[in-house]
Amino acid sequence: MINVTIWNEFIQEQRKPEVAKVYPDGIHGAIAAGIRQDDFAIRTATFHEPEHGLTEEVLAATDVLIYWGHVDHAGFQDQVIERICKRVHEGMGLIVLHSGHHSKMFRKLMGTSCDLLWREADEKERLWVIDPSHPIVEGIGPYIDLPEEEMYGEHFDIPVPDELIFVSWFAGGEVFRSGCTYRRGQGKIFYFRPGHESYPTYHNKEIHRVIANAVKWTAPVQRQRTFYGHHEALEPIGK
Amino acid sequence: MINVTIWNEFIQEQRKPEVAKVYPDGIHGAIAAGIRQDDFAIRTATFHEPEHGLTEEVLAATDVLIYWGHVDHAGFQDQVIERICKRVHEGMGLIVLHSGHHSKMFRKLMGTSCDLLWREADEKERLWVIDPSHPIVEGIGPYIDLPEEEMYGEHFDIPVPDELIFVSWFAGGEVFRSGCTYRRGQGKIFYFRPGHESYPTYHNKEIHRVIANAVKWTAPVQRQRTFYGHHEALEPIGK
Amino acid sequence: MINVTIWNEFIQEQRKPEVAKVYPDGIHGAIAAGIRQDDFAIRTATFHEPEHGLTEEVLAATDVLIYWGHVDHAGFQDQVIERICKRVHEGMGLIVLHSGHHSKMFRKLMGTSCDLLWREADEKERLWVIDPSHPIVEGIGPYIDLPEEEMYGEHFDIPVPDELIFVSWFAGGEVFRSGCTYRRGQGKIFYFRPGHESYPTYHNKEIHRVIANAVKWTAPVQRQRTFYGHHEALEPIGK
Amino acid sequence: MINVTIWNEFIQEQRKPEVAKVYPDGIHGAIAAGIRQDDFAIRTATFHEPEHGLTEEVLAATDVLIYWGHVDHAGFQDQVIERICKRVHEGMGLIVLHSGHHSKMFRKLMGTSCDLLWREADEKERLWVIDPSHPIVEGIGPYIDLPEEEMYGEHFDIPVPDELIFVSWFAGGEVFRSGCTYRRGQGKIFYFRPGHESYPTYHNKEIHRVIANAVKWTAPVQRQRTFYGHHEALEPIGK
Repeated sequence: MINVTIWNEFIQEQRKPEVAKVYPDGIHGAIAAGIRQDDFAIRTATFHEPEHGLTEEVLAATDVLIYWGHVDHAGFQDQVIERICKRVHEGMGLIVLHSGHHSKMFRKLMGTSCDLLWREADEKERLWVIDPSHPIVEGIGPYIDLPEEEMYGEHFDIPVPDELIFVSWFAGGEVFRSGCTYRRGQGKIFYFRPGHESYPTYHNKEIHRVIANAVKWTAPVQRQRTFYGHHEALEPIGK
Repeated sequence: MINVTIWNEFIQEQRKPEVAKVYPDGIHGAIAAGIRQDDFAIRTATFHEPEHGLTEEVLAATDVLIYWGHVDHAGFQDQVIERICKRVHEGMGLIVLHSGHHSKMFRKLMGTSCDLLWREADEKERLWVIDPSHPIVEGIGPYIDLPEEEMYGEHFDIPVPDELIFVSWFAGGEVFRSGCTYRRGQGKIFYFRPGHESYPTYHNKEIHRVIANAVKWTAPVQRQRTFYGHHEALEPIGK
Repeated sequence: MINVTIWNEFIQEQRKPEVAKVYPDGIHGAIAAGIRQDDFAIRTATFHEPEHGLTEEVLAATDVLIYWGHVDHAGFQDQVIERICKRVHEGMGLIVLHSGHHSKMFRKLMGTSCDLLWREADEKERLWVIDPSHPIVEGIGPYIDLPEEEMYGEHFDIPVPDELIFVSWFAGGEVFRSGCTYRRGQGKIFYFRPGHESYPTYHNKEIHRVIANAVKWTAPVQRQRTFYGHHEALEPIGK
Repeated sequence: MINVTIWNEFIQEQRKPEVAKVYPDGIHGAIAAGIRQDDFAIRTATFHEPEHGLTEEVLAATDVLIYWGHVDHAGFQDQVIERICKRVHEGMGLIVLHSGHHSKMFRKLMGTSCDLLWREADEKERLWVIDPSHPIVEGIGPYIDLPEEEMYGEHFDIPVPDELIFVSWFAGGEVFRSGCTYRRGQGKIFYFRPGHESYPTYHNKEIHRVIANAVKWTAPVQRQRTFYGHHEALEPIGK
């Protein structure tokens, strides 16, 4: 059983009727419905809950955190960011979606600006599979077509990904590293680009499949905690 | 269920009493006994069987091939090498152990000489975990101690590993990249250094655990076969 | 001074008037003219010369080999392939252009099929810079536009590149890892996609700049030759 | 000409006679003397200067910053850390030495704790070259021996290095990724492990050579500044 917490900012769904129309149950609701399966225990949390719904207790009970945020990165409490990063370092999996790239949390874990090119023009995105041997693309064809999406373009100011899983083509002429993995401490991270709030991306079955695969891939490995600090010699030091 | 074929050269066990004493059932037998579990269907094959026991049928029915060879790399049939490489490209997992680094098959998949430094001096090896987030080290502590092993030292002439999982320390003063992953075509490869025929390395429970973990990690991902070749445009090409 | 040998198959320029029109001095002539500078000593070689013009003497005197081939990969002598690979392993730089991806030499160095999607449709290619910190993109803007090129698309069946420098966008809807580096033995390799024989790509100043930068980047590092083989212990082995 | 700024904390040399004896001109003085060459314009800066000697003007005029710090990471001004990281993102090279691994600046650029195992036991370190094709090891043999050093051991909690150049062997039984490169924004970073203040490591000619090579390798590439932000479509977006 993998304990999954889906965090969604859940601000635009409440403010903008056109977003609410696409996501009546919130982006978190659409993702939860889409990835549901027997070996996932799913809960959700949102920005306006106390401590953004990500208390010590919730995070301690979370194996994999899925994160979608956009319009109030600035208002996200620093203390909760520290808490999330600490849990990633301890082994919690983290899936950062779309505009989460610019969250303080993701930038802190990456060590870069995470800036990019962008455009909202209802344009076609095609995500090509770059690593066909990776469990994150199990069940996925050579590419995923999304008829309308926001464009994100290179240069994407991220560290070199540990693994590059998807590259996107955009109708307007750009490309983007759309699926990237990273390791930070004992934890595994997957960044997955698509999912602007005004498009039904999180109702797409292939997108569900990628996210569900990523939950399994980022889930923590069972090992004793890594020790850091002063270490006695394991061998005699001849002098 | 993962279909595992353990291939062992099985020459030295038959020729040298001191090796037979360590591995009365062959290295393949020791590994098979050590990694046995409900979700593995294990068979074995050896050098002197027709086609080295790796016929089209056997390989077609193999999800993960474990490979140990040493003294007759030169005598391994080229046609069977082609067959193995083709299956790796199609997605079969491959675990290459110890002196398999110098097999024609591994060198062909790597594109390098796979040369290294070596010494047989009954010396201590300690394999340090470099990537604590990787499923291959699930259940493994900070390092694995082997009281006596053959030394392999850097520079190890391999391509840069996709993932570096273990680095070995040797009493005589060398280090070695002991656990390395690679992707070739649709297939995943794990090279794992320890296992000289004269030491009881393949009776060690932690070594069993690493190999069993690697079986799961290298197992093929279920996807439609990747298409290569001429491709019609997916979008109108304006001129 | 870097000794550069530009190898061009030079078959299509002699057979097809439309290719000769684009490259009256051959592709090798266009590249030689384009990358000329004081610290490069450039020679050229072609398929129909004895030993394809790549004798022991020529390769021994070559720091960086630039390689363009297409229609007669099958006819390239195995012995010369061995010679090139040996020199790469010893440290010679290698720049493989466009259809050289399918040469026996490149496939041998990669360990994969190097298959891909392709289409000849006079379509636009845009190469986006993915690694702005890399010396290979010195002097290059955010992207290079090529008005007409052959399409190569993902999945490109190569090992994971050590460094990903360019990703191409194609008008027909595909993407491609267009600039990739690899290390093999002591040698550095750069694969650079553009350059179909019927388009004036090798007259483009930005393409010249990338190739010239790559010559500098792949040039050998001056070190004593790496030793491989039996190694005496550097430290006393306590037992 | 590469403008190099060597930053040294320069606290222990002033407090501890045994350190002053090893580094009478400070660690910065030893490094400056060791890497001196015609194409480097070297200046130094230390902790107790205003703004730690790393003013806007100094950093704007710095191509490569070499950084050694140890006992007062906590006292390093956050504003100067921001300034350094901004310059790295813009392209300034950064070489972080030894205990600089635990500086707030390095941890911020890495996104991890940068914790490790450590021991001060006057023990032998041997740095093995892992990437013989890399310019950072030009002129260096198969390994560098340091008769006495502080031990740093794995697991080193860093992101997966972009390139792994050295791995250290320690007499007491540990290994360590001692030479690692990273890219952050437009800038290149080299972490180099050896150099505890009580040992004469920075008087060693091979260590000088590695640092000088790294200065050249991390020096910025000349390109126009990368643009990030809203981007007009380069192609018509058919709907």
